[in-house]
Amino acid sequence: MKAFVYRGPGKKALEERPRPEIAAPTDAIVKIVKTTICGTDLHILKGDVPTCQPGRILGHEGVGIVDKVGPAVTTFKPGDRVLISCVSACGKCVYCRKQMFSHCTTGGWILGNSIDGTQAEFVRTPHADTSLYPILEGADEEALVMLSDILPTGFECGVLNGKVQPGCTVAIIGAGPVGLAALLTAQFFSPAEIIVIDLDDNRLEMAKRFGATTGINSADGSAVEMVMKMTGKRGVDTAIEAVGIPATFEMCEQIVAPGGTIANIGVHGTQVALHLERLWDRNISITTRLVDTATIPMLFKTVESHKIDPKLLITHHFKLDKILEAYETFGNAAKTKALKVIIEA
Amino acid sequence: MKAFVYRGPGKKALEERPRPEIAAPTDAIVKIVKTTICGTDLHILKGDVPTCQPGRILGHEGVGIVDKVGPAVTTFKPGDRVLISCVSACGKCVYCRKQMFSHCTTGGWILGNSIDGTQAEFVRTPHADTSLYPILEGADEEALVMLSDILPTGFECGVLNGKVQPGCTVAIIGAGPVGLAALLTAQFFSPAEIIVIDLDDNRLEMAKRFGATTGINSADGSAVEMVMKMTGKRGVDTAIEAVGIPATFEMCEQIVAPGGTIANIGVHGTQVALHLERLWDRNISITTRLVDTATIPMLFKTVESHKIDPKLLITHHFKLDKILEAYETFGNAAKTKALKVIIEA
Amino acid sequence: MKAFVYRGPGKKALEERPRPEIAAPTDAIVKIVKTTICGTDLHILKGDVPTCQPGRILGHEGVGIVDKVGPAVTTFKPGDRVLISCVSACGKCVYCRKQMFSHCTTGGWILGNSIDGTQAEFVRTPHADTSLYPILEGADEEALVMLSDILPTGFECGVLNGKVQPGCTVAIIGAGPVGLAALLTAQFFSPAEIIVIDLDDNRLEMAKRFGATTGINSADGSAVEMVMKMTGKRGVDTAIEAVGIPATFEMCEQIVAPGGTIANIGVHGTQVALHLERLWDRNISITTRLVDTATIPMLFKTVESHKIDPKLLITHHFKLDKILEAYETFGNAAKTKALKVIIEA
Amino acid sequence: MKAFVYRGPGKKALEERPRPEIAAPTDAIVKIVKTTICGTDLHILKGDVPTCQPGRILGHEGVGIVDKVGPAVTTFKPGDRVLISCVSACGKCVYCRKQMFSHCTTGGWILGNSIDGTQAEFVRTPHADTSLYPILEGADEEALVMLSDILPTGFECGVLNGKVQPGCTVAIIGAGPVGLAALLTAQFFSPAEIIVIDLDDNRLEMAKRFGATTGINSADGSAVEMVMKMTGKRGVDTAIEAVGIPATFEMCEQIVAPGGTIANIGVHGTQVALHLERLWDRNISITTRLVDTATIPMLFKTVESHKIDPKLLITHHFKLDKILEAYETFGNAAKTKALKVIIEA
Repeated sequence: MKAFVYRGPGKKALEERPRPEIAAPTDAIVKIVKTTICGTDLHILKGDVPTCQPGRILGHEGVGIVDKVGPAVTTFKPGDRVLISCVSACGKCVYCRKQMFSHCTTGGWILGNSIDGTQAEFVRTPHADTSLYPILEGADEEALVMLSDILPTGFECGVLNGKVQPGCTVAIIGAGPVGLAALLTAQFFSPAEIIVIDLDDNRLEMAKRFGATTGINSADGSAVEMVMKMTGKRGVDTAIEAVGIPATFEMCEQIVAPGGTIANIGVHGTQVALHLERLWDRNISITTRLVDTATIPMLFKTVESHKIDPKLLITHHFKLDKILEAYETFGNAAKTKALKVIIEA
Repeated sequence: MKAFVYRGPGKKALEERPRPEIAAPTDAIVKIVKTTICGTDLHILKGDVPTCQPGRILGHEGVGIVDKVGPAVTTFKPGDRVLISCVSACGKCVYCRKQMFSHCTTGGWILGNSIDGTQAEFVRTPHADTSLYPILEGADEEALVMLSDILPTGFECGVLNGKVQPGCTVAIIGAGPVGLAALLTAQFFSPAEIIVIDLDDNRLEMAKRFGATTGINSADGSAVEMVMKMTGKRGVDTAIEAVGIPATFEMCEQIVAPGGTIANIGVHGTQVALHLERLWDRNISITTRLVDTATIPMLFKTVESHKIDPKLLITHHFKLDKILEAYETFGNAAKTKALKVIIEA
Repeated sequence: MKAFVYRGPGKKALEERPRPEIAAPTDAIVKIVKTTICGTDLHILKGDVPTCQPGRILGHEGVGIVDKVGPAVTTFKPGDRVLISCVSACGKCVYCRKQMFSHCTTGGWILGNSIDGTQAEFVRTPHADTSLYPILEGADEEALVMLSDILPTGFECGVLNGKVQPGCTVAIIGAGPVGLAALLTAQFFSPAEIIVIDLDDNRLEMAKRFGATTGINSADGSAVEMVMKMTGKRGVDTAIEAVGIPATFEMCEQIVAPGGTIANIGVHGTQVALHLERLWDRNISITTRLVDTATIPMLFKTVESHKIDPKLLITHHFKLDKILEAYETFGNAAKTKALKVIIEA
Repeated sequence: MKAFVYRGPGKKALEERPRPEIAAPTDAIVKIVKTTICGTDLHILKGDVPTCQPGRILGHEGVGIVDKVGPAVTTFKPGDRVLISCVSACGKCVYCRKQMFSHCTTGGWILGNSIDGTQAEFVRTPHADTSLYPILEGADEEALVMLSDILPTGFECGVLNGKVQPGCTVAIIGAGPVGLAALLTAQFFSPAEIIVIDLDDNRLEMAKRFGATTGINSADGSAVEMVMKMTGKRGVDTAIEAVGIPATFEMCEQIVAPGGTIANIGVHGTQVALHLERLWDRNISITTRLVDTATIPMLFKTVESHKIDPKLLITHHFKLDKILEAYETFGNAAKTKALKVIIEA
């Protein structure tokens, strides 16, 4: 089968690989219908993710059709259409029992990382019963690809952890795909204001189309001042960090109101300065989270009932044999204005 | 009347001062029966608290007898015995309506800070109806002095924010009075393990008598390793920071389990390094809080029903005219083994 | 001044009455700009509310202009435009400290009940600082009249108690004004389905215009069966009772899913049968609540930011001197299709 | 093997039966070490539980040693010592994913009900990975038998649902084994008062030894009056119903304070009168629950750390071949003073 393979820092290839086989009784083999590329895949290609070794088929998102199931799989059978969670969950361990699937002792984010992933014609999915989700007849499968990772990430790490509620004021720092996913899902809770901050006017325009009430370009260094002015010097109830660098996290520290929350989504590569000399008495919370995808069933229902349109995030389409081109487009988002690209297998 | 007065960095005096008068219709004048000294008072004396100016009567804790009330005070009348909260709360502002009394727009921690405090024969308490608490006939008033500040601080900032629950594992870094207050109140929720970490073996001994299941002296640098070993490499569910320096906060970052909470109590004077490069995917929460004293009514009930013995924290007694000696004793805790000292007015 | 007065069961009059005066230092006198009529006022007129004695000026909703304030009022001054909560709250008592303003020991629902109310040119409002809410310049005051009672009632008793959340299924039994208020505010949380059940097709039509996904006329006795069919025999996550009779409450018992909630809003005059023989093992919650209006500040923000349009509930307008006609219209809602009627003073 | 078998209403027998075999890949066969008898078993014997048919081996509690495992079982291997939950949970279905194991679509309470149970030498346990719990070396297995059903039932249905918290006032109606289990586990949260109400002075004495602050014999009809007097006419924060008849549930309705909770544990065979005409405006919650045993891991930790002594509930011991005698003793608790009886297999 065709598969997109990481070949070491800076190297990648579309290769011919053998089809995966059932390895444990709880496995399923899924024929991929549509998949996509994540920002994390770009990090892997740079060599930033040591758990992912050369030779690995990348990809941890997608929808497909169950091809084979192991003898212990009871929820799915060949022919079932399924959504693949980016997180594999055994459903049994101490973390899974708390819905903290991200830390499953035999799962977590392993697809396209420590085991082969979804950017291929077929994928082996471990713990199938608790890591795949049934797709209803007639559902828009392209929209559902967004439920593998990006929407639950924005929703769980940003919106739920950030305790967004009716009438509150939210700031989202970073209007890339995951920041926009937080923006879309924040609206489930009817906040009064959603301020989006970014360096790219094009993305801020998009954010406004997606429901931001204010867009602030932080290039001139006045973003903090503007937010404080807009909020009567109080700051925001929820500050969502969706970039992953010290400057943006520290911006969150400056704009969070007393009693508010900083919800981190960004993947950080270095420490940040936590200004406890200013924050120790401000009654704030800071949260971090690797997406658990525990909200996929809830998100399915919001998509079915048209409370959210995940397709807003999809900007480009490619066939699997053009995946190198898809990576080019996705990797040059500033120029191509790409958010999420769909790969049809 | 006699009053203990801050006279600028390094200077203090027991002085004769005029009795306070009612200044607003919601004020009360309280005759002090017993008060105490807080670690914060020592910070003021060093000149570390810019809101507190020379000439200020210190003290924000105590029990007393209502002497006079303003015309709008409806809950108390002269002769009532009361506990004075360290936090004054108007009960009306946006913060008070959320029980975030610490940030009351016309109150908060003002006693012995921006207005005269309780280390005197009388004190004016603003917003009396919502800042004083009735003491029942026959209650042990000395024990109740601990409810002005130290017990709610340990409980709200450490235990409640730290989400301590039955069967969980708690670490408390710092076995000073506030760490011990967290230790006492953590036991309301029956955690399985309470590990206390400090540099002073005497305090660790005391912590064990107060209910710690393990005491670790961190002087040799092995505390993190020991905690990880005790918890099967998982770390603790709740790490309570009760010191206020970067080293102890960063120790909390190292020992918190995935899904756990770091609850900061310490007053920090400088930034700390937040290792998001290691914590971004650990699903943790970090909380800060200036005590709101919203739990004083709950704490009253736990004292009345003997669920906690606050007098464990009291090591010394002085008369008000010996308050300079009381400060000496409290200020040299390493030598005197002082925790809380009672000043009788 | 002109005032609408309850004169004993079945009797009412528009009378000339003296203007109210400040009686306590925390009182304000408010000049009424707009008020409205509540279903409860009709109950009073029938003689069903024993706390309300003949001679009482009715009304517990409205917006107005502060005319005078007592010496202890610090938040408002003459000339301020304010919203009047239907619940008076001292902000000091054990219930107010829990945000359970409905049970304030010196307040609660007293306006137009045990003290004179708002269907007059002026009203005395006790505990003004914690029972009035400032109206921002330029706000639509007519819309805000809905925040005195009906919207917080639907929201607090129905939606918040009912734990409505994204993607869930809600049933609202009763499409009168309060059921519709629950319907409007339930949408803050993006449920997937909102099924409204009533006997009146006109009201069901209105419910669909207000956001119901399904309307069911329960006249033919098949409502329970239809709901179970729609939900795959599981039932609804949240069943909101907005009528107040045994039949509708027991319908909620039949349609609530395992793990779901029955949130009662209805005012009940008689006991209902609780079928514990069927429900004891269903892991359900049942809640009751007299509105606390603790969410008025949150609701203000949702109105300002256009997350909700309270004016949808307003069907008729009258001047104060035509209030008898207004009562006629409101009392014959089946014929007049009245929801809320605005009275301009 | 020997097994205790239900033979139709009023009939029971100790019989020789074939050993159970693995039937599904997720099954385990467990050799029973110790089991016990539940009040529900008595109901079955009377013919009150239609899902349980004649010929069934009873019992849904116990500890044992894993004898065989199906090919999909990964957590346990032969020789492991385990606790058997009374609830079988697949870990995959919509209910299991919410920790509502009691409603597992292929499990729930099936042991000793719709499939053969634990009052035998061996038992087949379905969904073994998520329905058995490992027992640590050196643990007191007799104490742990109480974790199969009775302690999680008292804790989940009574204490957690009842929102018991430090300083609050709890009433427990019914001092049978499950009421006493609620009493023991309520103390995890340090309530100020625990009032136990029963008709049997012997049980009330026992309740006091187990930590009740007050025991009230309700035989003379003054229990409600006494509770209201003790609570200053306010009532209790939490009323736990642990009997299962209308009179005791309605007593809870009478003693619950505004803002309080009625947590039902009792198995009810008939409807009760819910006095909404009195309760609609009291801001109360009523909860029902079939035990999920989701707290077994937490309870394990409280037992290991000596926060609770489950053996207090054990009054008698029998060998399996004397199980008919054990049923006699347990069935005549008023005379024998039996709480829980241990059966050694």
